[in-house]
Amino acid sequence: MNFLDLVNRRQSTRKYIPGRRIPREALDRCLEAARLAPSACNSQPWSFVVVDEPAQVRSLAEAACGHAPYAMNKFALDASALVAVTTEKMKLAARLGAHFRGVQYSLVDVGSACEHLVLQAAEEGIASCWLGWFDESAVKKALGIPRGKKVDLLICLGTAADETLRPKNRKSLDEIRRYGAKATR
Amino acid sequence: MNFLDLVNRRQSTRKYIPGRRIPREALDRCLEAARLAPSACNSQPWSFVVVDEPAQVRSLAEAACGHAPYAMNKFALDASALVAVTTEKMKLAARLGAHFRGVQYSLVDVGSACEHLVLQAAEEGIASCWLGWFDESAVKKALGIPRGKKVDLLICLGTAADETLRPKNRKSLDEIRRYGAKATR
Repeated sequence: MNFLDLVNRRQSTRKYIPGRRIPREALDRCLEAARLAPSACNSQPWSFVVVDEPAQVRSLAEAACGHAPYAMNKFALDASALVAVTTEKMKLAARLGAHFRGVQYSLVDVGSACEHLVLQAAEEGIASCWLGWFDESAVKKALGIPRGKKVDLLICLGTAADETLRPKNRKSLDEIRRYGAKATR
Repeated sequence: MNFLDLVNRRQSTRKYIPGRRIPREALDRCLEAARLAPSACNSQPWSFVVVDEPAQVRSLAEAACGHAPYAMNKFALDASALVAVTTEKMKLAARLGAHFRGVQYSLVDVGSACEHLVLQAAEEGIASCWLGWFDESAVKKALGIPRGKKVDLLICLGTAADETLRPKNRKSLDEIRRYGAKATR
């Protein structure tokens, strides 16, 4: 499968068949893809807590999204695994660069790593969804993650209840790129 | 090529053979991959200005990295194309979510889109490097990008002077992931 095919095949899945397990070997390949992602000054400012025991998945999902105002993401209760993604401190050089440039590059890096994770999942036939909207402090409590850490994302992994590929709803290429310096647009 | 192979093949290239051109069709496939990236509330908070005329590339690279304290990235002068990546405003729902969660999710999204771009480049045999450290206001001036916009990244694309794959220097899997709620680590 070429890369664009993989990109087209991967989509956000918000309905999973409950009760399915994902082999640890497959989960580890997803994490391996994330591990190899590039990052500013090679800081690798990420860590992952993976929950895949059914009772733990449900209890984490319940803590994360079981209540208002997060209940729109309650579909996470049917995931096979949840990955809590912690954004870690960058190396000093990257922190200085980020400071002077006014950009939190660790978030860019985490975006890149998590996209590797879900693309590898797609290649494994595992459906996925990123969640940014969840009760972070409840997640940290459930996972024993220190309060000072930032859990910016949860990734749901599971078996799609419906594997039909939806057409991707995106801006056109002309809307998002132009060629050449000094265009009018 | 499977996804992990592609991830392993893609590396940051800081030495390009000058004077090479990249066909627009190939550049557009890279941008197409970026276009299809997922984003919070499907905001697609990105836009790309691509410079591929040799004189424009050199003049943009000179403006971006030709002088202290950015001269460490002067290798960009030999790139075949430069992509200035603008982080755009998210949709209202995403902005509210980002506000309440204290996370600038648009940067996560841009990280995901740019990683798509460089992975597609790798598949095309095009070498790449992300730059975060450059003179942003000079870039905006050179490209006619309004001062209020944020150009958080420049991506260099070109022909690698040395195609040898370097081993990836990364933390081990055990250092970045654990399984199960409430571990001691």
